Parts: sequence; structure tokens; C-alpha cells
Amino acid sequence: MALDTSNLVELTIAICNIESVSGNEDALADQVQQTLQAQSHLTLVRDGNAVVASTNLGRQTRVIIAGHLDTVPVANNLPATLHHFEREQVMVGRGTVDMKAGIAVMLKLAVELKSPIFDITWVFYDNEEVASNLNGLGRLVRNHPELIQGDFAVLCEPTSALVEGGCNGTIRVEVTAKGKKAHSARPWMGDNAIHKLAPALNALSEVVTETVEVDGLEYRESINAVLASAGIATNVIPDLATLTVNYRFAPNKSGSEAEAVLRRLFDGYELVVTDLAEGARPGLNTEAAAAFIAATNSDVRPKYGWTDVARFSALGIPAVNYGPGDPSLAHADNENVPVGHLFDCEAGLRNWLSGS
Amino acid sequence: MALDTSNLVELTIAICNIESVSGNEDALADQVQQTLQAQSHLTLVRDGNAVVASTNLGRQTRVIIAGHLDTVPVANNLPATLHHFEREQVMVGRGTVDMKAGIAVMLKLAVELKSPIFDITWVFYDNEEVASNLNGLGRLVRNHPELIQGDFAVLCEPTSALVEGGCNGTIRVEVTAKGKKAHSARPWMGDNAIHKLAPALNALSEVVTETVEVDGLEYRESINAVLASAGIATNVIPDLATLTVNYRFAPNKSGSEAEAVLRRLFDGYELVVTDLAEGARPGLNTEAAAAFIAATNSDVRPKYGWTDVARFSALGIPAVNYGPGDPSLAHADNENVPVGHLFDCEAGLRNWLSGS
Repeated sequence: MALDTSNLVELTIAICNIESVSGNEDALADQVQQTLQAQSHLTLVRDGNAVVASTNLGRQTRVIIAGHLDTVPVANNLPATLHHFEREQVMVGRGTVDMKAGIAVMLKLAVELKSPIFDITWVFYDNEEVASNLNGLGRLVRNHPELIQGDFAVLCEPTSALVEGGCNGTIRVEVTAKGKKAHSARPWMGDNAIHKLAPALNALSEVVTETVEVDGLEYRESINAVLASAGIATNVIPDLATLTVNYRFAPNKSGSEAEAVLRRLFDGYELVVTDLAEGARPGLNTEAAAAFIAATNSDVRPKYGWTDVARFSALGIPAVNYGPGDPSLAHADNENVPVGHLFDCEAGLRNWLSGS
Repeated sequence: MALDTSNLVELTIAICNIESVSGNEDALADQVQQTLQAQSHLTLVRDGNAVVASTNLGRQTRVIIAGHLDTVPVANNLPATLHHFEREQVMVGRGTVDMKAGIAVMLKLAVELKSPIFDITWVFYDNEEVASNLNGLGRLVRNHPELIQGDFAVLCEPTSALVEGGCNGTIRVEVTAKGKKAHSARPWMGDNAIHKLAPALNALSEVVTETVEVDGLEYRESINAVLASAGIATNVIPDLATLTVNYRFAPNKSGSEAEAVLRRLFDGYELVVTDLAEGARPGLNTEAAAAFIAATNSDVRPKYGWTDVARFSALGIPAVNYGPGDPSLAHADNENVPVGHLFDCEAGLRNWLSGS
């Protein structure tokens, strides 16, 4: 069934209400495909639950506009509902921010912009909210490298309809202290691994994280323990204690430089890297980025969260985030988007892509 | 089937090989019952998987000799095996130390001592290695308070065949730090509960625990974190972090005094008491204890681990631990007992109970 793209608000609600938690994007991918394959100005490729729709107008410049179809698990917050306040309308529900409002804007423009000033590759992909190796955009790059090429990319992740350039990198490590087991009645026969985490927690409490300027934007770094785990039973002195630590590092650092920062911070502990994603420099010094910023008439901010702009960056394609919704509400149970953001993003992208 | 009690070593191996992990003591309790009910000098009561066998000779003094039938889970260490070294024999396997060698000594003497100088209440009970509310001795005190009465009690827990008097108390608390959840890309919007555990771990690392003299014995105290738990997901700043802390306190302190020590140590944290067992003063100043020590010709040491002597202590019955096996090997996968300990304990108890 094709989706009706005439009304952006109704389209967003319809898309939110096709539940598509990561791994379960089939129904939504089908409807996106059916909506776009009716359009003669688009060439479609389906790969798993990703849909790529391209214009082929022979333009000098090709831009990629991308968004993911999946959401984090529903938290009793579907179907999406529309609330009317005095000064604004707000849509509430899973995916409204991350990122089905962005998907709705993309889908409407993909249908309506039959003769844009650039060739456009619209990418709707799956499995962004789960492990990196499942990511649909990554899979498309592996399976169809020829499709993910262009001069500039826009990822419609939530930015409150502002332009957010680049993104922080992220590294996750397990910091482990080792000791020796003993019965808790005779702890002096063992060596308590939990107690040995004290210096690591002190280091975390005392660390001064930087705000780093990269290509004119300020990136705020952070180092946080996200998990702590130790102990076998209440009557055993534990021989193993582990902190999982996440470092969000500015895009002027490489992943290995970030790892070195953590190894210095946790000197004396065992340290294992369990996840690493490089950051992306904002790339705002490119001509394409400048034109995009002018057309959308936006302020530019740094992106703190890691997003798939880093995948474009790794391919040498300058990329920015630009989409409806407050990113700090992503994944929240009360996820909600002001309807104004939808129209702002629709207008911004339409102006840019139409050259008006 | 009655057990053959003629050979102490073979009896111990037979008892070890009737697997009786807590909750699964039926088969062993049945065999203990069948062994003892053939003895006309004993009156039996069975309560669940506890068996109580009493002489009723009208002696002026009644003593209780008790031991638990259950073990911690088997760790690929059954059937028990006997190893012959140049100078000694060692029995290896689950329960050899904690405390089937003690059970074997009890069972042999219960059968053989038909006219002891005291009346004896032999108590074989279940569920000592699990939660306090399941403890078979506690259940007997509730269901048959008239059975658990006496002038002195010996618990045949492992002591390397020495007399260990009294026991430390034990209190377990959950120490909780609270914060505020946030996405780990924007941790400054939250408040990391794990980082807030640093002062608690520092306090644990720096605490100086005491060795306290009680009734002439020295009790070594200890405070240890045994479990640590925090975190929801690797991309969420945790709002809750919990340390489980175990304090083993000398028997000159009450449970509420021990709790006060922990509340001072972890000032500023939420603290919930999840387990509390009072200690037991050694009670070595009693006449019965002095006679026992003389008869067994033993050195006397403090008991660090909490044992059910505290239950006797709470009933006003002086009690000591005395049994084969090194207590520091209890629960170990390589649990093992020198055969010499078995004969030492058998002789010690026999001398005392025969008045020889």
C-alpha cells in the first residue's frame, strides 16, 4: 500500500504508527517502496529493508539525503497522538523525534521534487538503533557501493531543524580490576576486586573533559561509566570487577588517540575496547555545505551524539544532520516533536533542492 | 537403608556420596533416620529433612550435638575420593569439610554411645547453606522448641578439630547512589550514579577494621563490597548504582551497633539492611565449656564465619564449633579433609561424652 504524502502531519503519524522497532522494518520498508515505485522520476533499489531511490537527471552535483526507518522499542507510546496547544501542535509517540518525522519529510519531497537542481539519492535504511554491524547504511555501502556516492549528504536525524555538523566519536571500553576469591568471613585470604575500582572511579570523578573547536564548531567531550558489574555471591569476596566506560571524543581525535586517553586514565587496569566509532569533522568549509546552510537559513551547531554522518565522512562525503525534533528527546518515553519543525525542515530542504 | 557406621572413613565417603545440596536432603535424611531408628537407646523425631535423636537416661546435664546435612552445589567434585600420601590420608570432594565428616562422626557416636555421662540430643538438619529463613535448625526451634534445649551445644562445623568459640555477626546492606538518567552522548543533562560510588569505595579501601577481644578470644572484623551493580544500557547515563556490602562484626557488638558503623561509613548514601545475623560470644567462661575443652584437650580459637552457634547463643545455650576439616576450604572446589581430623574429633567427643 502506497502512503498518502499530501499532508505532512498525517503522513508522519501514519509512518509512526507502522511499528518498526529495529529488525522489524519490513512493513514500513514495503510501504516506502510502494510509495516511491509509483514515481517515474525515481529509480529504486531494495536491499533487505533498505530502499534507495535516485533521480538520474544528469545534474553536475549529486546529494544524498538519508534517514533510518527503525526506532528503539515502543514504551507504551504508540499510536502517535497529535496535541493542539494555543501556540503550537505537538506530535507525541515513539519515533516522532528519532526519526520518523524526518522520514516523512524525505518521503514527501522524494515524491514531489521531480526536477531538483541536484541529482538526489534518497536512502531509507534499517537497523540504525542496534549494533553497528547490523546497520543498514553500512550494509548498503558494502552491497551497493555505487549507490552511496555523492558530493554532499544530509542525514535527517533530529536537530530541532537546525544544521548540526559532524559528530563526536565514541569509544566504549571495559575496565577490569582483578583480585582473588575468598569466603567473605575470611576476606584477608582473598583480594577484593571491587575495592580496586576506587582509583578508576576517582579518575572518572576528577577527569576534566574538554570542549574542542573543530572547523569552527565546539565539540563537548565526556567520559562516563555506563555499567558496573562485580560479584559472584553475597558470601564471596569477588575476584573480578568491571566498569564499562564510554568516551565521546571530539572529531579532531582519531579512535586510537581516544583509546590512548583512556589507557592513560585507567593505567594499571586491564582495558578492552568493546566498541569504537570514529567521529566526523563538520566539513563546513566545503562549498556544498555553505550552500546548504545558506538555503536552509540555519544556525550551525555541533552534533554531540554519534550519527551515521560519520559513515559518509569515512567515504569522503561531507555530511550534516538536519531534521525535526529535539535530539535530547530521542529514545525518551515522552518523545515528541513540534509540528513546526516538520514544516521548517520541509521548507529548508525544498528551498535548497529547488534552488529557490 | 541403614548406613554401616563401623568404619568412620567408609561412613564419611558413603555420606558424601549421597548428594544433598540444600533442598535435596531427603535421601540422606532418610538414611540417617533409618540408621538411628534401629537404636533402642534413642528417641527420634523427624521434621522435614531434619532428624533429632535423643537419649533419655535421666542425666543431670543435657548436651546438644548438631550438624547440617546439606552442602553447597557440587562442582564436579563427587564422588568423594580417598588419597593416600606418605604421612596421611586425605578425602577429597564436596562436603568432606562442610560438613559431612562431622556428620559421620556424629552418626557413629550416636549409634555407639549407649550410655553417655550426659543426655545427648543429636540434631541432623537441613538447609544451612541457604537463606536464613529456610534453616532447618531455626525451623526445629519454631516447631519443636522442647527438643532444642540443653546446657551446652557443640556444632560439628569444620574447625580443623580445634575448639572455635562463638562467632562473628554478619550484616549485609545495599548502599545506593542515585543520579539522573541521560543519553550518554549528552551526559551533562544527567547525573552519573556510578561516579557517585567513588566515596563509598574510597571509604571501603581506607577503613581500618579492628581485631576485638571477647571473652579472651580475638575476633577479626572485616567490611567488604561483595556485589556491585549499575547501568541500564551502554548508551544511558545510569541513575542508580548499588554496592552490596558485608560487615563481619565481633560478637561484642549487637546487630544494630554494626548497622550504625555502616551508616556512619556510608553517610550520604541510601542504605538498606538486607541480611543480619547477630554474633555469638564464645561463652568459654561456663563450666560446661571448660569441661569440653579439657576433655578434647584442644586449643581454643575464635570462629570468624557466622555459624549456627549464634542460634544456640540466642537460646541462652553456650555453644562451640568443633569438627574435622579446615574451614577455609569450605565451599572450595578442592574441598578436602585429612582423615586424621575425623579420628581426632571422634576421640575428642567420645572422651568428653564418656567421661574418660
